[in-house]
Amino acid sequence: MRDIETIDTLNQLNIDLQGDVSSPLGFIAGGLHCGLRRKKVDFGWIYSTTPATATGVYTLNQFKAAPLKLTEDSINKDKALQAIIVNSAIANACTGEKGMQDALDTQAWIAEQLNIEQHLVGVASTGVIGSFLPMDKIQYATQHVLKEQYNKSEAFNQAILTTDTMTKHLSVKVEIDGTTVTIGGTAKGSGMIHPNMATMLGFITTDANIDANTLDYCLKQSIDQSFNMITVDGDSSTNDMVLCMANGQAQHTQIDALHPEWHKFVYALNFVCHYLAKSIAKDGEGATKLVTVKVKGAHDVVEARKIAKSIVSSNLVKTAVHGEDANFGRIVTAIGYASRYIEPSATHVSLCQVSVLEKGMAVDFDEQRLKEELASDNILIEATVGNGEGEAAAYGCDLSYEYVRINASYRT
Amino acid sequence: MRDIETIDTLNQLNIDLQGDVSSPLGFIAGGLHCGLRRKKVDFGWIYSTTPATATGVYTLNQFKAAPLKLTEDSINKDKALQAIIVNSAIANACTGEKGMQDALDTQAWIAEQLNIEQHLVGVASTGVIGSFLPMDKIQYATQHVLKEQYNKSEAFNQAILTTDTMTKHLSVKVEIDGTTVTIGGTAKGSGMIHPNMATMLGFITTDANIDANTLDYCLKQSIDQSFNMITVDGDSSTNDMVLCMANGQAQHTQIDALHPEWHKFVYALNFVCHYLAKSIAKDGEGATKLVTVKVKGAHDVVEARKIAKSIVSSNLVKTAVHGEDANFGRIVTAIGYASRYIEPSATHVSLCQVSVLEKGMAVDFDEQRLKEELASDNILIEATVGNGEGEAAAYGCDLSYEYVRINASYRT
Repeated sequence: MRDIETIDTLNQLNIDLQGDVSSPLGFIAGGLHCGLRRKKVDFGWIYSTTPATATGVYTLNQFKAAPLKLTEDSINKDKALQAIIVNSAIANACTGEKGMQDALDTQAWIAEQLNIEQHLVGVASTGVIGSFLPMDKIQYATQHVLKEQYNKSEAFNQAILTTDTMTKHLSVKVEIDGTTVTIGGTAKGSGMIHPNMATMLGFITTDANIDANTLDYCLKQSIDQSFNMITVDGDSSTNDMVLCMANGQAQHTQIDALHPEWHKFVYALNFVCHYLAKSIAKDGEGATKLVTVKVKGAHDVVEARKIAKSIVSSNLVKTAVHGEDANFGRIVTAIGYASRYIEPSATHVSLCQVSVLEKGMAVDFDEQRLKEELASDNILIEATVGNGEGEAAAYGCDLSYEYVRINASYRT
Repeated sequence: MRDIETIDTLNQLNIDLQGDVSSPLGFIAGGLHCGLRRKKVDFGWIYSTTPATATGVYTLNQFKAAPLKLTEDSINKDKALQAIIVNSAIANACTGEKGMQDALDTQAWIAEQLNIEQHLVGVASTGVIGSFLPMDKIQYATQHVLKEQYNKSEAFNQAILTTDTMTKHLSVKVEIDGTTVTIGGTAKGSGMIHPNMATMLGFITTDANIDANTLDYCLKQSIDQSFNMITVDGDSSTNDMVLCMANGQAQHTQIDALHPEWHKFVYALNFVCHYLAKSIAKDGEGATKLVTVKVKGAHDVVEARKIAKSIVSSNLVKTAVHGEDANFGRIVTAIGYASRYIEPSATHVSLCQVSVLEKGMAVDFDEQRLKEELASDNILIEATVGNGEGEAAAYGCDLSYEYVRINASYRT
């Protein structure tokens, strides 16, 4: 993690780790406690003072939660949103027609409260599957949305959490056409022991002036390298989604891929997505270490991603990392079952930059030095798996006793 | 688990849970301590007094251990084996040319000791990846193979174990053409938190008279429904294999699929494979409960198996089972990301025979009764996922603190 405010001079990026979805011009965020959780804030909102271009990336799980389906349909109407509301504690998934009606009612109440069109309201939920929302509490919450005393973005950052141990947010500023453009992001996610079970929500806001198709394209590109490298694409929970709103209030000329400073916007968006994704990985339930896996030499990028995810999601690798044990055999095993295109005799593995396998064979290494490196809370695993061009990185965490404790009694 | 000796009258199967690979006529098994482990026996053998028809099923991991490659090649020469030797503690994987030479030397020493052809000796190893075998100790062991005082099959059953907490073996007898045919089996396996990382060895012996191709076909069929439903086919460790030897000493007419009592042999072999596979699942590292997942209504058997494995290998399901928490949402999530052919509105889930989801919607259930059922050490999860014909069962275990403890410090 970087310092609170740094300037990435190479990419002319100004990073603010205190920033969040409320940082770009024209965005307000807030949250309150409406009684879904015992004491913590449990209901949050993001509001743009003008309608924003919007796009989303949604779970591919066959069981899609009602709020997710509603939000996808709403965005598809006009590729725009002006508000997003989120509740934690209850996922409103596996709740049938009543669940969908509850999501619709919530959306309608917010639209009425804010005096905007209903399809401009996105709805997200996270929490326990199979329970209905207590609609009296939700209605109470919707009546207090945007009230001055609740408009604190930190309350939004808190309201969306479940088993997370920390909020996850930042903003970055970048100059485009001499105008400052800000991108802000807030996310929640944990349950990282098995990437494909992570319940993950991401919200990204920007005052950039950008059309919906361009925004959609570059959000998907970013997510493939970041959020999807912690939550396996296509293998995710009922409620996962990332939503992005761009309200154009920075008032520069509209940008697209032909703009000479386009790469700066893409870099900034990538930075936001990677930072949030890594924050989720590091805050895996019971996690004590962030694990970064870098794979190269794979047949292609698809194979590289499969292999990187296979390593980062192997429980045996994760427990070895937790135990600070240089058990590279488990890394090799996870590589070997991930892809048919491995070249064992061209496979090299290093752990915390100490080479442990060369040309498919174990090599002698300094056990003591590696033991010391493994005591770090940032563990790097690098694997070359052949002579191909495919490269990828994946992010995860170790597997601890604490994970078992948290998950053995989440629902009750 | 059944009583020590029972008779399955329906299928005319006589089951002996004291039996093992030495039970069929003409088979001897034994083991000794040669110093690979501190105190426990670590080197074992199976020997047939006459050459036996043999077949094997091998890991699809791209990193195949030297002994596994050697055994596969040896069996392919003549589809026969007369002896199998197994060491624990060291896997002889990722050991390059020296590792292969070590496996070859071991095989040659055994062939010389027993005065049989070298390719009739199968070699198997299990343990830590990336270490060389101490060949002086192995040579000592090979010189004592088949010595009277070590020919105790219980020593073989013990010698192949790693983190297992119990031996796994049985034999069954079935009448074919009025002759008693015996099938015996011994297995090792643990590390079941993630099925595709289980290190698993299975040895099956029989005095049946059967040709190699028929044996091969029916072993593969059995394994697909048993061992492969605990270790994902194609996704296994460097050393996994199941070997089967048939020496014909029961002296009945050779059987094949056209024989009127063929189904009895198939049933008996299936029984042995399922019993051993379930024993491995139940002995998962730190496991306290056997979890059986039955899926029906899937698009086809391939999809049914994917879904069953997805549920049984979900860490969130496994921790919920450990915590005796009726968290059916995690089961639904694991179904939803396993297959594209789910029909959510035709999906029903029950946990310990208590219905928790009907037509894709949560239903009210008796929490207290389910809590009591979940205290059992045999947990049944049943899911109907649509209107298809595909059915499958998968086996696993819960995920406990103990798993983390064992695996955080296995190597060191």
